[in-house]
Amino acid sequence: MLRMLVKVIRTAVAAGVALTVAGGVYAQSLQEVMKERGLSEKDLLAAAKTYHPSGLKDEYVVFSSGGQSGHVIVYGVPSMRILKYIAVFTPEPWQGYGYGEVESMEILEQGRINGKEILWGDTHHPALSETKGDYDGQYLFINDKANPRVAVIDLKTFETKQIVPNPLFKSEHGGTFVTPNTEYIIEAAQYPAPFGNEYVSLDEFEQKYRGGVTYWKFDRNALVSLTSKALRRLKKKGVPTKNLKKLLNEEFNGKNSFMAAVVAKIGADAAKKHQKNIFKYASKQGRIVPDKSFTVEMPPYMQDVSDAGKALSDGWSFTNSVNTELYIGGYGKGNTKWKDRLAYEAGMSSKDTDYMHIVNWKAAEKLFKSGKFDIVNGHAVLRMKDMIAANALFLLPEAKSPHGADVSPDGRYIIVSGKLDTHTTVYDFEKIKAMVDKKDFAGKDPWGIPILDMKKAMHTQVNVGLGPLHTQYDKEKGVVYTSLYVDSQVVRWDYLKGKVLNKIPIHYNIGHLLTAEGDTVEPDGKYLIALNKLAIDRFTGVGPLHPQNHQLIDITAGRSMQLLYDMPLPLGEPHYAQMIKADKLKPVIRFSKKDFKHYVRAGQERVERNGNKVTIYGTAIRSHFSPEVIEVKVGDEITWHITNVERAQDQVHGFTVDNHNVHGSIEPGETATFKFVADKEGVYPFYCTEFCSALHLEMTGYFLVKP
Amino acid sequence: MLRMLVKVIRTAVAAGVALTVAGGVYAQSLQEVMKERGLSEKDLLAAAKTYHPSGLKDEYVVFSSGGQSGHVIVYGVPSMRILKYIAVFTPEPWQGYGYGEVESMEILEQGRINGKEILWGDTHHPALSETKGDYDGQYLFINDKANPRVAVIDLKTFETKQIVPNPLFKSEHGGTFVTPNTEYIIEAAQYPAPFGNEYVSLDEFEQKYRGGVTYWKFDRNALVSLTSKALRRLKKKGVPTKNLKKLLNEEFNGKNSFMAAVVAKIGADAAKKHQKNIFKYASKQGRIVPDKSFTVEMPPYMQDVSDAGKALSDGWSFTNSVNTELYIGGYGKGNTKWKDRLAYEAGMSSKDTDYMHIVNWKAAEKLFKSGKFDIVNGHAVLRMKDMIAANALFLLPEAKSPHGADVSPDGRYIIVSGKLDTHTTVYDFEKIKAMVDKKDFAGKDPWGIPILDMKKAMHTQVNVGLGPLHTQYDKEKGVVYTSLYVDSQVVRWDYLKGKVLNKIPIHYNIGHLLTAEGDTVEPDGKYLIALNKLAIDRFTGVGPLHPQNHQLIDITAGRSMQLLYDMPLPLGEPHYAQMIKADKLKPVIRFSKKDFKHYVRAGQERVERNGNKVTIYGTAIRSHFSPEVIEVKVGDEITWHITNVERAQDQVHGFTVDNHNVHGSIEPGETATFKFVADKEGVYPFYCTEFCSALHLEMTGYFLVKP
Repeated sequence: MLRMLVKVIRTAVAAGVALTVAGGVYAQSLQEVMKERGLSEKDLLAAAKTYHPSGLKDEYVVFSSGGQSGHVIVYGVPSMRILKYIAVFTPEPWQGYGYGEVESMEILEQGRINGKEILWGDTHHPALSETKGDYDGQYLFINDKANPRVAVIDLKTFETKQIVPNPLFKSEHGGTFVTPNTEYIIEAAQYPAPFGNEYVSLDEFEQKYRGGVTYWKFDRNALVSLTSKALRRLKKKGVPTKNLKKLLNEEFNGKNSFMAAVVAKIGADAAKKHQKNIFKYASKQGRIVPDKSFTVEMPPYMQDVSDAGKALSDGWSFTNSVNTELYIGGYGKGNTKWKDRLAYEAGMSSKDTDYMHIVNWKAAEKLFKSGKFDIVNGHAVLRMKDMIAANALFLLPEAKSPHGADVSPDGRYIIVSGKLDTHTTVYDFEKIKAMVDKKDFAGKDPWGIPILDMKKAMHTQVNVGLGPLHTQYDKEKGVVYTSLYVDSQVVRWDYLKGKVLNKIPIHYNIGHLLTAEGDTVEPDGKYLIALNKLAIDRFTGVGPLHPQNHQLIDITAGRSMQLLYDMPLPLGEPHYAQMIKADKLKPVIRFSKKDFKHYVRAGQERVERNGNKVTIYGTAIRSHFSPEVIEVKVGDEITWHITNVERAQDQVHGFTVDNHNVHGSIEPGETATFKFVADKEGVYPFYCTEFCSALHLEMTGYFLVKP
Repeated sequence: MLRMLVKVIRTAVAAGVALTVAGGVYAQSLQEVMKERGLSEKDLLAAAKTYHPSGLKDEYVVFSSGGQSGHVIVYGVPSMRILKYIAVFTPEPWQGYGYGEVESMEILEQGRINGKEILWGDTHHPALSETKGDYDGQYLFINDKANPRVAVIDLKTFETKQIVPNPLFKSEHGGTFVTPNTEYIIEAAQYPAPFGNEYVSLDEFEQKYRGGVTYWKFDRNALVSLTSKALRRLKKKGVPTKNLKKLLNEEFNGKNSFMAAVVAKIGADAAKKHQKNIFKYASKQGRIVPDKSFTVEMPPYMQDVSDAGKALSDGWSFTNSVNTELYIGGYGKGNTKWKDRLAYEAGMSSKDTDYMHIVNWKAAEKLFKSGKFDIVNGHAVLRMKDMIAANALFLLPEAKSPHGADVSPDGRYIIVSGKLDTHTTVYDFEKIKAMVDKKDFAGKDPWGIPILDMKKAMHTQVNVGLGPLHTQYDKEKGVVYTSLYVDSQVVRWDYLKGKVLNKIPIHYNIGHLLTAEGDTVEPDGKYLIALNKLAIDRFTGVGPLHPQNHQLIDITAGRSMQLLYDMPLPLGEPHYAQMIKADKLKPVIRFSKKDFKHYVRAGQERVERNGNKVTIYGTAIRSHFSPEVIEVKVGDEITWHITNVERAQDQVHGFTVDNHNVHGSIEPGETATFKFVADKEGVYPFYCTEFCSALHLEMTGYFLVKP
């Protein structure tokens, strides 16, 4: 032992680099490798903090928006390995999303806007469902800025389950944000437009263009389907199941309450009598219910991101805005030549302050329930005048062009950064509430909305650096982290004491940032991720379009901030992300029979023809499709059910019919249904697209189309 | 110093884990971190070999197929960070691929099959362009199994530039593979079908169903466009540029040789006279030229992957096959009930051997040039009888259901693994060539193709393990690595001496594998990647559909194989991949003016109307679009040119018009053109979708559609 130690120490002192005392082989190699790769001891420490040997799971999971890709990106922390791209607004064949698999086609259909098919999205702000202000790991929500829509992702399967277009907005940035128990999902407009779909000249901008904030009602127990067993049972009991199916579909689309409809159909007594049976076999899942949702009309300021109050401020929401200048390039002011005036971005940031929109959403909910709303495009709109009368809507000046409005874990403080101001403002909700209750207002805006006094509402204001954007909270009371876009830094500061603690440089131009569970009532601290807007020279070149760069920073209490890892994002441009403890997620590894109406048992495979409608009931198992050969005629409408009868984890089969633009991923226990028309005579192989066994290449068959 | 050392050593001996001798802080932290995260010293070494501090570039770049996602995946080695998903067969909005940006729409249009739009692909085998059998880093080719097509990706921009459908095949797996100087790109059929597009009963399988191998001619200097400057010059010289544009378009589509057409149009003398001018301002790029390509007809065996001969065997190609049993479930043998017989996969693997198809492609090229071919669907088909007569086509028995056919760096040996046989066979091309020259055949197949004697062609046969699939070569002479699907191992063995060296377990069920430049004339060894087919429990759960798992293994000479890293692939299912030295790639960081016909200079922005055709000439620069406001009428056909006038690296602007399903990514120097119809009255904001500056949210405008 001693001789070896002495030798090791001598080498160490000579080389001055890290090496192991125990285990001479590793000592030598480690020393060589560090030298060869030019790693410092600090690098080695960062490596040790992020490296995951095979099978070691991540401590946290991040859900990030994918920006223009229309996806949601899921990755592990601290390994910074991307685990999945979840297809949301954009069709994606690997997941069988939007390529003929009926369930996904129906979800994308929900995303039509005024009948127009929109097959991409610009996702910005994901929101994990919350219970008592803490992530519960059940659902994820995500918005589409370009085509105002909100999607619901079920975290049991990591699949998109619902897309709801906003019936009023033509633009949207400030979505999604949830209230502490996910009662509502908040979506705010951005670039103003008329609520209707008609053309309105920019000359009437102030009169007819509007902003708004939509509160989407979320129901964790929306009745979305009945199993065939349930339907049989109900039929036996005399409940008209034919109608039930229709009603369930309406329920799925939030058209009305399921039981109310049952009552209407079969009378209160029968409904009551059968309620137990009806729900016994029902599949209840989390869905947005449009008919229980409403929008608060706002002036044509550009509303931006929001945050919901929590604890002390529960029942309230706070929404930033830009362009309270109402600048639209001089339009409506006689100037119609776009060269003779200030550019948009200059005119839109000429004032020193913009407005935080403060909404008492519980009061708004009361208004909605009392029927005090107009219906526009089939959706409930709470008018400004009614909101003002109900003392439920206020404006609070905030430093110009703010990005974040971030509520503290205890709900008392709201931190807002004006990206064109070096000051970050800490507002005290108790002061705001006191002014609101006393109707102590500093004035009104042109639409009559009460304006609160900025100074009176402030706890403090801190000069944190250039281009402050967003703020996230630490486990340590009073400690927060704010992204500095212009300085390319993250600043750590104390919002209670109002002083800057320290800073760390990032690469480059950080937008959002996130800490572990950093926007819940109980932040974990530990890890911070800088969502940078430029990568420039960080990675090996891959052409003019670079990957994004998420930088992982160690913020463990007692350690100074340490940059651990640069992670390229190979597809899409994330904006905001949230980080949840991995053990809060409970994904399933297989589907259950009862999830599917058309589950096909092995041995029951068959082909049924009814006129030109051909229905195929098939199975898939390593490494065989049944049936193997299908002959149809040109023009036949094909419905093809395939059940993956595997039980084993990860034993997926893929399915395609060559040259038909059809593709599906069929996970263990799943029954996928494909619909397409056999529109061209010919010989078309079909095969399993997911390598499944040594005989995978032989998992094939022929789809023959006769003239 | 000494006191500290003693203290450190004492701690070390007590803890028995790695720590640093120099630098007490790091020593302590490293020790804590390893303990806290349960890392062994072996893990720490692996971490040191893969960790990349911010800015440290990767040594190698991997190009992997994305399987059913239709993309190509690019990642760095040894960091195993994914750098880019390149959209190929599937539209992808982040890259502006297939969402209204004209260049990409035209490429996807090329991918139509018999007029049918196919918007996804099943990519399998990428091939980097080669010069003298070594990767040259210029182009990447990729195939689509589901809808037989081949795509060309330009590695200057990492963008897809061409998609060529196979006019004969209905299924394809064995693409793409290149000849040593990228003279041809090889694409082999898989599931047999008639070459025509008509229905043919399976009863006529042997008579009318066919396989084949297509040799796509690649031209690195195809004339794809002329700059406007060139066109002006030519006009001045009297060359009819109007026709030239049309001819260039034909050239782009490989319809015919550009100069030949010029000759036809303006006569040989004029053409000669202007040739210099014509080419002076021409943009020459690598493209497949369909009219210079041909297909060798094959029996309805299922042809599989290929490899091109090199050095010693240059001019030859080798293609595996499965189902030489010609089993199609008893069809054509009176049995039409799919329940009363062997399942496909069983019937297709009942014989002990299948056939390697050996083609002398230089002889085939002679046949083609001499006009000895039939035209089917507008494409040249070399018939089996003619190939046989030219002594250019042979069959060689190989162990049943082979996957890989991998040619050694010197071109002398071909290693084939039959995945249902534990033996891997090493064939000696010199022996094959001798038999071929002497016409020493063991027999003929039903189509009259000479069959060579397996034993006579063998160098050796080695029992490597269960489920051997693919083989890659090491820098060290004689050393190869073969993937063992059933054993879930990689076996290192010597194909010259014919003995197994050692094995390493992987997780789980490896398909392809790759080593650094492992299929070139000069393999680097160093790194091996196992492309596993199952991840199962390796990563945090993300629902029933798991990520894939690529495992990095250190094979540096003198070190025993060491598993370094598990890398999840979040989207798509890779099959094969190639690894190239990063410094061989020369991507550009911006586009040059001359690449675009409609480059718009700042100050020259304008809107032109011609009937219902509205053309907008716009610019984008931080943080402003010009023009900002566009008013059109319902039904107007919009052509919108936008030049990103930025020069700075990574300064990208995105573009969308809300609710129009249009999105583009406009990189520095690029001019993107969008075409769409203003089909609905209304007010539609447009904006920059790529965060570009502190005033990015203000980079917007209004697109107004009047009734």
